[in-house]
Amino acid sequence: MEHASDILFTLFIVFVAAQVGGEIAQRLKLPGVVGEIAAGCVIGPSLLGWITPEQTAIGTPLDVLAEIGVVLLLFSVGLETRLEDLKKVGKVAFLVGVLGVLVPFGMGSVWAHGSGFDWDKSLFVAAAFVATSAGITARVLQELNALQRVESKVILGAAVIDDILAMLLLGVVVSMQGGGGFNLSHLLMVLAGAIGFIAVVGLGGARVMRWNSNWLEKPLAPHSPLMIVLALCLGLAYLSTLFGLAAIIGAFLAGMIASETRQQHTLEKQTMPLLALLTPFFFVVTGSKIDLHELANADALLMLAAVTAIAIVSKLAGGWLGSLSLGKRSATIIGFGMVPRGEVGVVIASLGLAAGVFNNRIYAIIVAMSLLTAMVTPPVLAWLLKRGGSTETADQPRES
Amino acid sequence: MEHASDILFTLFIVFVAAQVGGEIAQRLKLPGVVGEIAAGCVIGPSLLGWITPEQTAIGTPLDVLAEIGVVLLLFSVGLETRLEDLKKVGKVAFLVGVLGVLVPFGMGSVWAHGSGFDWDKSLFVAAAFVATSAGITARVLQELNALQRVESKVILGAAVIDDILAMLLLGVVVSMQGGGGFNLSHLLMVLAGAIGFIAVVGLGGARVMRWNSNWLEKPLAPHSPLMIVLALCLGLAYLSTLFGLAAIIGAFLAGMIASETRQQHTLEKQTMPLLALLTPFFFVVTGSKIDLHELANADALLMLAAVTAIAIVSKLAGGWLGSLSLGKRSATIIGFGMVPRGEVGVVIASLGLAAGVFNNRIYAIIVAMSLLTAMVTPPVLAWLLKRGGSTETADQPRES
Repeated sequence: MEHASDILFTLFIVFVAAQVGGEIAQRLKLPGVVGEIAAGCVIGPSLLGWITPEQTAIGTPLDVLAEIGVVLLLFSVGLETRLEDLKKVGKVAFLVGVLGVLVPFGMGSVWAHGSGFDWDKSLFVAAAFVATSAGITARVLQELNALQRVESKVILGAAVIDDILAMLLLGVVVSMQGGGGFNLSHLLMVLAGAIGFIAVVGLGGARVMRWNSNWLEKPLAPHSPLMIVLALCLGLAYLSTLFGLAAIIGAFLAGMIASETRQQHTLEKQTMPLLALLTPFFFVVTGSKIDLHELANADALLMLAAVTAIAIVSKLAGGWLGSLSLGKRSATIIGFGMVPRGEVGVVIASLGLAAGVFNNRIYAIIVAMSLLTAMVTPPVLAWLLKRGGSTETADQPRES
Repeated sequence: MEHASDILFTLFIVFVAAQVGGEIAQRLKLPGVVGEIAAGCVIGPSLLGWITPEQTAIGTPLDVLAEIGVVLLLFSVGLETRLEDLKKVGKVAFLVGVLGVLVPFGMGSVWAHGSGFDWDKSLFVAAAFVATSAGITARVLQELNALQRVESKVILGAAVIDDILAMLLLGVVVSMQGGGGFNLSHLLMVLAGAIGFIAVVGLGGARVMRWNSNWLEKPLAPHSPLMIVLALCLGLAYLSTLFGLAAIIGAFLAGMIASETRQQHTLEKQTMPLLALLTPFFFVVTGSKIDLHELANADALLMLAAVTAIAIVSKLAGGWLGSLSLGKRSATIIGFGMVPRGEVGVVIASLGLAAGVFNNRIYAIIVAMSLLTAMVTPPVLAWLLKRGGSTETADQPRES
């Protein structure tokens, strides 16, 4: 029974730390998520050491709760996203996704080569600059009730494109580390699989739900629509990992499909308590991965500053260029919305460390960069959104 | 990323198995929980082997989700329970709790000694007959909207007494295995600690909440009452393990305290989706612990039948005698309500196996007995409750 006690203590500490951090952030007029990530840094191994999540894999129960938390978060964001709205912004989102990958990859590899890496390894380092973490931005957009704005639709659509391209890029650079080059036909098959998965699930699923969603209420269990839709969320999250995509892409698709049902409003309300309980685990665990010890010297801090600046500028530029057709103000919001790297950068950094491409210090710097972009974005985004005029695509206010 | 994929698959399978099992059970007019436990047995190591939870400790992420599930379940049951109502049935609940421990312990030790165990070890075996698992009964009462009946109040009150006594008894028999006898003054201190914890938290907490619960809405976070109350639930669940009690006792107290607030109704609604997502993990994991291989012979099955019969009859007799003042019909409901041993029996059996008190076969039999009582009770209880006249203490129908 000792073990149960330890785990309950961990759950309690993480949950309370998230609430306290979120509350402080909100009192300082910052998005709550910044406080939750900071709380994770404080109670994590770097400072208090009250929690110790795994660095490289989803090993501990805490990591699993974090994963469920971010899966549910993207599911709920999907619930507020109509396929039609995404289609409207399809071209812009595609451009933002593509340029948002190419510009950071280009600038990242040049910087890495300039810092003394071989070209092979430089490409690997650059891959860590690429993948946007949709979770952070989605949370900020949700906190500010901004999910119905056109910029939000572009960001979400671009995040899907971004994830596909990042996956492919990572596949290429990983295969290049062996020195064997890469297999183009294999790569095209992976690409076709991922696009096919998203198209079939997104288009087909939305059509089925729009046609008839009464069957969701056939089971005898109370809350049966919620149960079926949660099963769909877990199932698609799993399936999307089989296609090499992030689990959150599947969860987002599940939410988007469910948003076509006539039970959408009830589902949205019922999902809120699930987010309240579980997403704090994701943000606290994310924050706990910053290793302050490796960064506690001037050299490392300078390098971190440079890397973070490149990461922010390159992603902002890519997103901005891609969405310029919507006007400069919207393009700035979209560009910043793509900046957070969050846990995706952490995962790529872990792969690089495991493959021996870089050492502990570079690893710590890339992880810190990923998390700094996640910390810096929310306040900027909140400021931009509050300041900018409203350009909503639909009038659909959210209740709490 | 491979690992994330495995875990998402496990989550998906457990969740879907629970829904399918629950649905089949309900179509057969059985409580859904029976189907969920059966589903766990089917997908567990004994049959399909799709999930493999730990036998002895809370190790895997699945066990942690199960623990959170049962903690939330008892929290929600507490939310529907007023301290005043419990006080009204205090004496009967106390009698039920005490006799429900003494009768099974007595009959269990006589049987164990008759089966060839030393008296020392017999007492240990008998301890596995003692502790009621409140989770199973609570779920059935909730499924049937029967939590407001006087019998339900007695069962819940008695479950708290039962847990205190079972903890003490286990302390005694474990210390006796060393051959050193036990320390009475230590035991009295543990008893005083447990009773003090429950009294201070229950009475004090309820008073604070009844006096004023506006402060629950002071934080800026949306859903702040829910967040604070969930933190309280996790915190008290942890604290109660420190006092040697089950985590669910603390969770139940947290719910009972929260039921005194003016936000009680909202909290109840917001808790439902949490139960929907997480309690299936508890029941499926419980079911998956049955080891059918060890039981696949006539001797073992005969012994299992005898052990299960003793476990049911002794608990029923104890509860029945304790609550006879409420009439025979109510006493029968209460007696059956105390029958499920569930995960508590599994924990004690694991301790006995680890301490070398009994072998794999006895272990498997005790685990199977615990789970059989959990499987047998719900249909009987549902039948008794539907058949019996309503003796509600308060008119407080639950919405779904």
